[in-house]
Amino acid sequence: MDVEAEQSERTEAWSGITPDAARRLVIAAVEAFAERGYHATTTRDIAGRAGMSPAALYIHYKTKEELLYQISVVGHRLSLGLLQDAANGDGGPADRLAAAVRSFVRWHAEHHTTGRVVQYELGALGPEHYTEVVELRRESEAAVRSVIHDGVRAGEFDVPDVSGTTVALLSLCIDVARWFNPGGRRTPDGIGALYADLALRMVGYAPRQR
Amino acid sequence: MDVEAEQSERTEAWSGITPDAARRLVIAAVEAFAERGYHATTTRDIAGRAGMSPAALYIHYKTKEELLYQISVVGHRLSLGLLQDAANGDGGPADRLAAAVRSFVRWHAEHHTTGRVVQYELGALGPEHYTEVVELRRESEAAVRSVIHDGVRAGEFDVPDVSGTTVALLSLCIDVARWFNPGGRRTPDGIGALYADLALRMVGYAPRQR
Repeated sequence: MDVEAEQSERTEAWSGITPDAARRLVIAAVEAFAERGYHATTTRDIAGRAGMSPAALYIHYKTKEELLYQISVVGHRLSLGLLQDAANGDGGPADRLAAAVRSFVRWHAEHHTTGRVVQYELGALGPEHYTEVVELRRESEAAVRSVIHDGVRAGEFDVPDVSGTTVALLSLCIDVARWFNPGGRRTPDGIGALYADLALRMVGYAPRQR
Repeated sequence: MDVEAEQSERTEAWSGITPDAARRLVIAAVEAFAERGYHATTTRDIAGRAGMSPAALYIHYKTKEELLYQISVVGHRLSLGLLQDAANGDGGPADRLAAAVRSFVRWHAEHHTTGRVVQYELGALGPEHYTEVVELRRESEAAVRSVIHDGVRAGEFDVPDVSGTTVALLSLCIDVARWFNPGGRRTPDGIGALYADLALRMVGYAPRQR
């Protein structure tokens, strides 16, 4: 993905955040947290990146933690929405699992900077915000687990440990945010297609059906 | 794993680092980097955690980056050694792949704090140190890829994209360091067994052979 495309992906994820100044602060915070880590970043750094004064930042976010929380909640809600749309979509369990993996992987490749911040700085959220985000993560697990259950019930999947396989599948997709390189030879779509096939193998979807 | 067991795992990984003061500094640095991130940690913080003066730290490590490099190289060499031992061990490709995944996963669960620091702070290494660590990562990939190739050549594995499947397998194992919780219900051995089975599925090792 080129820089311009990446920029547009990044902005698109935050299009729901208004007003414009709050959105600019979120984008600046993601970049600063990704570069230096949450604890090494000050609200002054973030305001400076967004071309604003610390006082202007304070109008929108009272603390640095509020910014991290906003990034984390928006990121988790968007990726959860993609998973749920695919998991509750048309088709049999194999089609729905493949679609869920494809879109979850694509999200983590395209939003790899946000993905890293959200995953690595989870421990920096305040207790209430942490609890809220953990709940969104549970819903993501539930969405994947229910498709796997459907496949097992339909006799199409063979999964001895549904909960462990669910954790592994989500982990595989999330970790794309760590290693994805927009300048590398693998595209978000290419990784999505590969991982959808690997997911069907992991749930024992018989090769003759593939 | 209880706290005592975790402490012993942690110390064991660094047993090759001498003298004792240098080892204590590495252990203190891993904890500090994991808690606050590399950029928010000072050499003064690290010396304080190790019960030493900044001047005493300076005898062993001239910079904070040297400490990160030591952690990263030792961590990568240990986990590479485990992979290579398993990949070059006895048995057919399926046995060797399963053994490699089991020990790589166990390492990342037991040394999850080190694993997080090593993976998340890769970008903070200086250019030469970064190049050296990337070379160790290439060797880890090569070890896994060669077992998969053996399985494909022997007609036991069915892998359309060997290089992509290698990346996915390593990613799955490495990400255990992110989500593993020593107080949770899954043990390093349990995750190792589950993931060895998932790995064989990912390479299309036919179920009747499992």
